Amino acid sequence: MPPRYEVIGVEGIGEVRPGDDVARLIVDAAGRQGTPVVRGDLLVVGQKILSKAEGRLVRLEEIAPSAVATGMAAGLGRDPRLVEVILRESRRVVRMDRGVLITETHHGWICANAGVDQSNVDPGCVALLPEDPDRSAQKVRDRIRALTGADVVVLIADTFGRPWREGLTNVAIGLAGFAPLKSYLGEHDPAGRPLQATILALADELAAAAEPVMGKLDRIPAAIVRGLALTPGEEGSKPLLRDPARDLFR
Amino acid sequence: MPPRYEVIGVEGIGEVRPGDDVARLIVDAAGRQGTPVVRGDLLVVGQKILSKAEGRLVRLEEIAPSAVATGMAAGLGRDPRLVEVILRESRRVVRMDRGVLITETHHGWICANAGVDQSNVDPGCVALLPEDPDRSAQKVRDRIRALTGADVVVLIADTFGRPWREGLTNVAIGLAGFAPLKSYLGEHDPAGRPLQATILALADELAAAAEPVMGKLDRIPAAIVRGLALTPGEEGSKPLLRDPARDLFR
Repeated sequence: MPPRYEVIGVEGIGEVRPGDDVARLIVDAAGRQGTPVVRGDLLVVGQKILSKAEGRLVRLEEIAPSAVATGMAAGLGRDPRLVEVILRESRRVVRMDRGVLITETHHGWICANAGVDQSNVDPGCVALLPEDPDRSAQKVRDRIRALTGADVVVLIADTFGRPWREGLTNVAIGLAGFAPLKSYLGEHDPAGRPLQATILALADELAAAAEPVMGKLDRIPAAIVRGLALTPGEEGSKPLLRDPARDLFR
Repeated sequence: MPPRYEVIGVEGIGEVRPGDDVARLIVDAAGRQGTPVVRGDLLVVGQKILSKAEGRLVRLEEIAPSAVATGMAAGLGRDPRLVEVILRESRRVVRMDRGVLITETHHGWICANAGVDQSNVDPGCVALLPEDPDRSAQKVRDRIRALTGADVVVLIADTFGRPWREGLTNVAIGLAGFAPLKSYLGEHDPAGRPLQATILALADELAAAAEPVMGKLDRIPAAIVRGLALTPGEEGSKPLLRDPARDLFR
């Protein structure tokens, strides 16, 4: 039997509000569409609905921008209150040029605007990334087990840009229950020579695999990835963060 | 019906040699395993088997390294003949530090070692990327139509590293028959506000989706992605190349 797996969008989750039980919303919606969540599934959940459920929303009118944010905003041509929020969510500015602000978040992710996003939230509001996406993933995982008895693994995804290549791709910013890296180190090719530098970012590849069924417009904020045998792991997403000492592009 | 699609590895392709008909090898292997290639499939093909079929192999003992390559190799702690081959495949060095050589290939891709790879090739040899991966993809596409009558689209994939995040991911370096970017520009979220900067690198996400079934050790150099409606396009992979003028990390 060839290796194969399936990716299924979860429709009908609807608008998510602070305090909502995301795990239950997903379990119910998956059941209604005839694809109930089962043991071994990987659940990919878009960051936005978790941010909303966790109340990670900020009203810009309540933000008083600092002098630093105001100065940066002038150079970027951006709203100073938005820049203030982005800076609060950041521990370092990586690039600031041509209207683009790329920072390192407190989690260690490097992305545009510290992941702060104005789309699909109420006018005048912005959504922040979850405070601890690994913890958010573990909570969804635990809650799904409580609701259904099924042991699943969970990945929290967001769309990030990258240098050199056009377009965003979905990547993992949090996860629970599996190892995000797949290593071939120490293994050999069929000719017996060591495989070079072959550590694969499996979690990012699976986040990417989920995106084609997670329409931004169609309100499909979650997907089921079914049929892959993932290696158990309890380290969350941290192994995906490159050690700054080994990074040539900081 | 929820959106869904499937990813199927193609086993039993075997060792590929210069002059081999990769399209036929894939069609035959997919048929043998009970998942024949059908109309609408996206075929993801690992770069290595195309490079081999196209004879893009170099024997290092036949390479006379230039003084420049010899000097760089000393600093990198690498084989001067390998560095010579990498430089010949490059139009620009992006980073050279700590044993790592990141260059821009003649196609415009930025990656380690210009994609030159020593694993899964004969000892003493290295494999280069296909000379024109879009053309390679189109040839496979045309040949599959000739062999089976099925109109498929084709993606040539390789595993590249990226800044800031650990692990390689599979990305598209060539493709035929579909548009690699998916754009939400000009569209609005359910609240009516314009979606921000939402161009997705769908081709890279689908390359990534294929990787989990394309084992480096299991000799599964191709995968079928089945069930997605892709937008037709004849521009190949070029839209994935970021305009250097808009790139903050050159």
